[in-house]
Amino acid sequence: MSLIVIGTMAYDAIETPFGKTDRIVGGSATYVAWSASNFYSPIRQVSIVGGDFDQREMDELSTRGVDFEGVEMVKDGKSFFWSGRYHTDMNTRDTLITDLNVLAQFNPRLPESYQDCQYLMLGNLAPAVQLSVIRQLKQRPKLIVLDTMNFWMDVALDDLKLVLREIDVLVVNDGEARQLSGEFSLVKAAQVICNMGPKYLIIKKGEHGALLFYNDQIFSAPALPLEVVFDPTGAGDTFAGGFIGYIAQQDDISFETMKKAVITGSALASFCVEKFGPERLKEITQADIEKRLQQFEMLAKF
Amino acid sequence: MSLIVIGTMAYDAIETPFGKTDRIVGGSATYVAWSASNFYSPIRQVSIVGGDFDQREMDELSTRGVDFEGVEMVKDGKSFFWSGRYHTDMNTRDTLITDLNVLAQFNPRLPESYQDCQYLMLGNLAPAVQLSVIRQLKQRPKLIVLDTMNFWMDVALDDLKLVLREIDVLVVNDGEARQLSGEFSLVKAAQVICNMGPKYLIIKKGEHGALLFYNDQIFSAPALPLEVVFDPTGAGDTFAGGFIGYIAQQDDISFETMKKAVITGSALASFCVEKFGPERLKEITQADIEKRLQQFEMLAKF
Repeated sequence: MSLIVIGTMAYDAIETPFGKTDRIVGGSATYVAWSASNFYSPIRQVSIVGGDFDQREMDELSTRGVDFEGVEMVKDGKSFFWSGRYHTDMNTRDTLITDLNVLAQFNPRLPESYQDCQYLMLGNLAPAVQLSVIRQLKQRPKLIVLDTMNFWMDVALDDLKLVLREIDVLVVNDGEARQLSGEFSLVKAAQVICNMGPKYLIIKKGEHGALLFYNDQIFSAPALPLEVVFDPTGAGDTFAGGFIGYIAQQDDISFETMKKAVITGSALASFCVEKFGPERLKEITQADIEKRLQQFEMLAKF
Repeated sequence: MSLIVIGTMAYDAIETPFGKTDRIVGGSATYVAWSASNFYSPIRQVSIVGGDFDQREMDELSTRGVDFEGVEMVKDGKSFFWSGRYHTDMNTRDTLITDLNVLAQFNPRLPESYQDCQYLMLGNLAPAVQLSVIRQLKQRPKLIVLDTMNFWMDVALDDLKLVLREIDVLVVNDGEARQLSGEFSLVKAAQVICNMGPKYLIIKKGEHGALLFYNDQIFSAPALPLEVVFDPTGAGDTFAGGFIGYIAQQDDISFETMKKAVITGSALASFCVEKFGPERLKEITQADIEKRLQQFEMLAKF
């Protein structure tokens, strides 16, 4: 039994009102792995990196039960690089540089050892690549979770619609849910999107928390009110990692478990934004997570 | 023992993407009274109306335990009139007409019978008028709740700061909390505002719910995700009415009771937006409210 994570492993240069980093490890699969490995292993990673990718980043994750057999290393290539600058409100950002590099040739081949997959996390990536991973699995996983973004709705909507038919849980933010459905009301948007395939829909609303939709049931998860959001990069991937990591740990896909998984994802995301990149995720302990989860309980209980 | 409500009793003309009304009863004190009277009586109303105000509107509320001795009737004057048009997003609106009429001469005198006040709801109104009501009470109420809006921050900030020193709970929306505090982070805004006087702060976030701040504790109340918001007029006043009505009913001002009061206010507000003006509030039964409160529990429980 295992959890497969597919996504980017990359470098980012980030500028926020609080400071800047020149080059820090990032990528959707990196954040998902750091987050999910608090709850579950083995995690079988699927990604592509260049010769410039620091082996120590993988070694750190290996000690947490992350398997890199499915990560292609292109020795004479460069890792995906993204650079961006956040505005003062921290909700909007400008992309300064996007160098696809080795990501342009990414055509993942699942190792045979990955066929024990029960939980599949399709991190933010081209929908066609996400679909190819589903198709390579001989047995359908218990749960397939897809994270995506508005960029793919703009440039690869048909591919995205194909992969939506194959998954169980879709994770998007409120703007993306509106774009994908053409509906302003999130309740109506959820109805339209669930007709496209997913049984469950998570709509992330940043500082306003997240909504989980399943049939006619809705769960509203609070966000932890924060004094400072230092760097939002990777918060969405970290949410997804906490979500699927908790479900894999519980080995249960009931609505009750999914609610707690949304809270767990939100808690992990609240750590992520406290420092640059995945720095804070590398520091936190089980005790830190436990304490943060209690804060969420205090916040929502009445 | 009683609950005093001070605010406007008025007529509105409302235009939304779903339709328009020519002239419908409104005003902050009207909405508060309809909402709070589901939970508590007697409610002692303080307001001013013109000779055009329909006696039947007061008769309806009288049967729910609302006392109008403190409402001044200016026979040859006209009631306050407001007209506005909501934009498609329902979060923004244009004011088309504001006719103060008798409100311009409002200088409330509390009847002697109002001195049994234990709970005081200062509905949205000029801060100087709100303050004069506090000063007329010989014994300080158990709890004073103040609702206000950005307009008073623009034109009467000094008066508002004076009344803030005298109250227990301030109710504002997120934009107003940011304006009043000069802080973007709502956590920091709450610290600044609580230093101005209020012990408790409620920040309403519309479709994103509400936050209740008290010392270092925070409670996050969800909003009911709605397919359609038909008319948001009065939703904030209705929230305030449900909040203080529930507290007066419980006769308890602990943080635990305040949390449930925020949920109760949110539930009442979710009815208010379903029809024009206070129409829906006039229809709902205790069973409707009970059912809606259960929906909030389902929504937030994990």
